[in-house]
Amino acid sequence: MPASPLPTFDDVRAASTRLQGHALRTPVMTSRTADEAAGARFFFKCENLQRMGAFKFRGAFNALAQLDAGQRRAGAVTFSSGNHAQAVALAARILGMPALIVMPHDAPAAKLAATRDYGAQVRLYDRHTEDREQIAQSLAAERGMALIPPYDHPHIIAGQGTAALELLQDAGPLDALFVPLGGGGLLSGCALAARALVPECKIFGVEPQAGNDGQQSLREGRIVHINPPRTIADGAQTQHLGEITFAIIRREVQDIHTASDAELAAAMRFFAERMKLVVEPTGCLGFAAARRLGASLAGQRVGVILSGGNVDLPRYAQLLGGAEPAA
Amino acid sequence: MPASPLPTFDDVRAASTRLQGHALRTPVMTSRTADEAAGARFFFKCENLQRMGAFKFRGAFNALAQLDAGQRRAGAVTFSSGNHAQAVALAARILGMPALIVMPHDAPAAKLAATRDYGAQVRLYDRHTEDREQIAQSLAAERGMALIPPYDHPHIIAGQGTAALELLQDAGPLDALFVPLGGGGLLSGCALAARALVPECKIFGVEPQAGNDGQQSLREGRIVHINPPRTIADGAQTQHLGEITFAIIRREVQDIHTASDAELAAAMRFFAERMKLVVEPTGCLGFAAARRLGASLAGQRVGVILSGGNVDLPRYAQLLGGAEPAA
Repeated sequence: MPASPLPTFDDVRAASTRLQGHALRTPVMTSRTADEAAGARFFFKCENLQRMGAFKFRGAFNALAQLDAGQRRAGAVTFSSGNHAQAVALAARILGMPALIVMPHDAPAAKLAATRDYGAQVRLYDRHTEDREQIAQSLAAERGMALIPPYDHPHIIAGQGTAALELLQDAGPLDALFVPLGGGGLLSGCALAARALVPECKIFGVEPQAGNDGQQSLREGRIVHINPPRTIADGAQTQHLGEITFAIIRREVQDIHTASDAELAAAMRFFAERMKLVVEPTGCLGFAAARRLGASLAGQRVGVILSGGNVDLPRYAQLLGGAEPAA
Repeated sequence: MPASPLPTFDDVRAASTRLQGHALRTPVMTSRTADEAAGARFFFKCENLQRMGAFKFRGAFNALAQLDAGQRRAGAVTFSSGNHAQAVALAARILGMPALIVMPHDAPAAKLAATRDYGAQVRLYDRHTEDREQIAQSLAAERGMALIPPYDHPHIIAGQGTAALELLQDAGPLDALFVPLGGGGLLSGCALAARALVPECKIFGVEPQAGNDGQQSLREGRIVHINPPRTIADGAQTQHLGEITFAIIRREVQDIHTASDAELAAAMRFFAERMKLVVEPTGCLGFAAARRLGASLAGQRVGVILSGGNVDLPRYAQLLGGAEPAA
């Protein structure tokens, strides 16, 4: 069991209030094509249209907004090469706090630039010789900064859960909910909201086929660690769940499915062609799995979280064009 | 002057009531990046998220819904290789009417398939030896079907105007409104709504640089005909305005701007990268021109109609990837 107490649905509701006027209430979209293919009714929560292009802003803002005046002056530090880095940078800017992001020295130039554009300071590290968590922890200790981890934190989890809270408020009761799964922040937060609002809703996590540590963990009843998976779903290349996220997931989640890179690319093309939405590979996990389940969802009301839309355009163009996906 | 009376704002309001529960009330989106670049406040009306992927559904449904019982039994005929064909096909299906679409024999297979998927019958013609309007007129006369032209019709114009009506209801007053311009159905309808709701709003049409017949027409005070322009904006390759659309445009529209194919492709990349939206080249006309005007819009509230999102994926991928646009 994790050391800190598990967040609850009350924390999700409090996060929702905190996020008002800062996070966007993203639209819930539908698609007759998707519905007709599965004989189900799909509700897509469009977090690709969230500020900075992903749900991560919800958790980051919820965490930073709870720091006290002294902590705000000292600022926040985190380690991430992805959406969480930009989320912390943007939330810090809004709250008038300094932010320091520990990023690999070979991170894409576009991501470094985007993080700096939000006003954050970047500390580069060598991922072959240095440990990013250790660097972040030392910096936090030295400078009195708050360390904001990407997923295993009650405030992060509660913030991410507001995506499912809004989805259920807008779409009404659901029979099933599909959520992308990396470290489990989004899945565990959404599970808290869905379980509280619709006790009988089946909650599914979906992770890349190449990195099914969550599936293994759920089956073995312990957190399984894996090597970094090779997948186009770069937001779900985590090597293990968190202690808090796993404790919630094993309690609330029915099952964890996987999706192959080819299925993710096909879902990405579906969103572009039929729904006119740019969804990043990780954001396609939920629908890719729901599509494969097909007939077993017939007659059901199915929620799907589209977690983000941040994908480099040349890469996106390549995947849309039908190039073989290569991680 | 056109033979039929010009539609008015009352017709747009009546169309809005008629469309309720059939057309989507598409979202109005904003972008801090766009705002910061221009020092203006942009409001994007997302008709790429409309049913069948374009505003055309509004006009087609508004026209077909006004046919009487006898006309509904006989059905509707139109000529189009683009979004209007699918719009008539879908509206006819919803209203339980037959639809017959006259399309060139070399139309893309995907468009033929999509039109047939909506349950419409397709009559192919050879565009080198046959005249599509003549074919449609003969068919309408022979079979007693209603001929639904793509833009120069009061009911089509009133239907398209509901896009601007909704935009102004959701965004509030605007200083300027940018609307893609092909045959003028969308521009004239939106002009009726904008002029009535915000008398001082400046209304601009935007057409492809390669086919500026609208701009020439406005300057010369008569409908100028041009050869089919070569442009990636395939929804704006019309060769002349309509009599009704021109009469409204010359009365209400301040000016007509143009955008080059390169500017359209750049705007398309902006929408994908920053707003996570798939917008077809024609749908990018308004923003491409607004971007070029830049500083002259500083401090203003600017509405932009994104008219559609229907673009073949391979073509879209090519343009996103930065390939030189070629018509």
